[in-house]
Amino acid sequence: MRMMEEMILREGVVLPGGVLKVGSFLNQLIDPELLRASGEEIARLYDGAGVTKILTVEASGIAIAASAGVAMGVPVLFAKKHRSSNVDGDILSTPVHSFTHGTDYNMVVSRDYLTGGDVCLLVDDFLANGAAMRGMIELVRLAGARLAGAAVAIEKVFQGGGDALRKEGIRVEALGKIESMENGVIRFATAD
Amino acid sequence: MRMMEEMILREGVVLPGGVLKVGSFLNQLIDPELLRASGEEIARLYDGAGVTKILTVEASGIAIAASAGVAMGVPVLFAKKHRSSNVDGDILSTPVHSFTHGTDYNMVVSRDYLTGGDVCLLVDDFLANGAAMRGMIELVRLAGARLAGAAVAIEKVFQGGGDALRKEGIRVEALGKIESMENGVIRFATAD
Repeated sequence: MRMMEEMILREGVVLPGGVLKVGSFLNQLIDPELLRASGEEIARLYDGAGVTKILTVEASGIAIAASAGVAMGVPVLFAKKHRSSNVDGDILSTPVHSFTHGTDYNMVVSRDYLTGGDVCLLVDDFLANGAAMRGMIELVRLAGARLAGAAVAIEKVFQGGGDALRKEGIRVEALGKIESMENGVIRFATAD
Repeated sequence: MRMMEEMILREGVVLPGGVLKVGSFLNQLIDPELLRASGEEIARLYDGAGVTKILTVEASGIAIAASAGVAMGVPVLFAKKHRSSNVDGDILSTPVHSFTHGTDYNMVVSRDYLTGGDVCLLVDDFLANGAAMRGMIELVRLAGARLAGAAVAIEKVFQGGGDALRKEGIRVEALGKIESMENGVIRFATAD
């Protein structure tokens, strides 16, 4: 999406270690026009896919998931991150390793809110190695729900998580697809 | 707001200890129509107030703040909850006690994203004793910004936080204003 790419070029800051700082418009301060347009673009991409629920994970995925939910008219469920492994029967839980923070957590949703009849669209702000996305996929599997695909604001293609999912037949859409950030120069993948 | 009150009556579950469970439409699974309407109602309430930034706190305040931001066309900033006191000069930080979880945390925003020129609207899902709201007010004060007021999805009037703020001259709007939940019966405050 052109607006996302332009915003990344104008506002994004490339830090050492392949980190892209987008706090000024996406994951701490959130630009309202970009947020609205991102939700509408995700709705356009998944129009007709039969999505009944959007699944995201706290905290920085919530805004874009909420915008997509409003645009699509489907409920938004956000998974929580718990430090401890909770064996409560009322929840679905899966362990996730965060490469960003170097920590492990349990990704948790209430069993009541994700059910076998659901067709899920996974939404997040970033897709890099795909760990959080794989956690959400596991929650969908545990619920016996179906997966429509995934949509993220920014994919860091060079970290491989998105293409690994695509190779498994999972539909993955990214509004800004960054192919490389070498020497601080951001290059986008060309449109398919 | 009628839609919020109807949803609370239809879906809310009163638990022991004055807890209202609204996970099925507000703070885990989020209803898209309620979310859109809540954002538009907050925009209507604060129309003309000169708001330049919406401030909320992760995680469950983000969706409604995002919806209000889209409706008002102003950026949304979400404060983070840190366990440790970070003395980094680039952040604004204030300690908050969470009565819900019985824990303390530091509420943190980047200094770059909240500045002296801002007129802030504080948005959250719940207002009970007001601890989180007071944390946000302190961040606004630390930034030298101005406060337009606060808007929450649900105020538990009987816990006193909202009225204490109003007594200090702070404008507080609630879309659903619960006066009492005795014996599991939810009663709303009548409109002013």
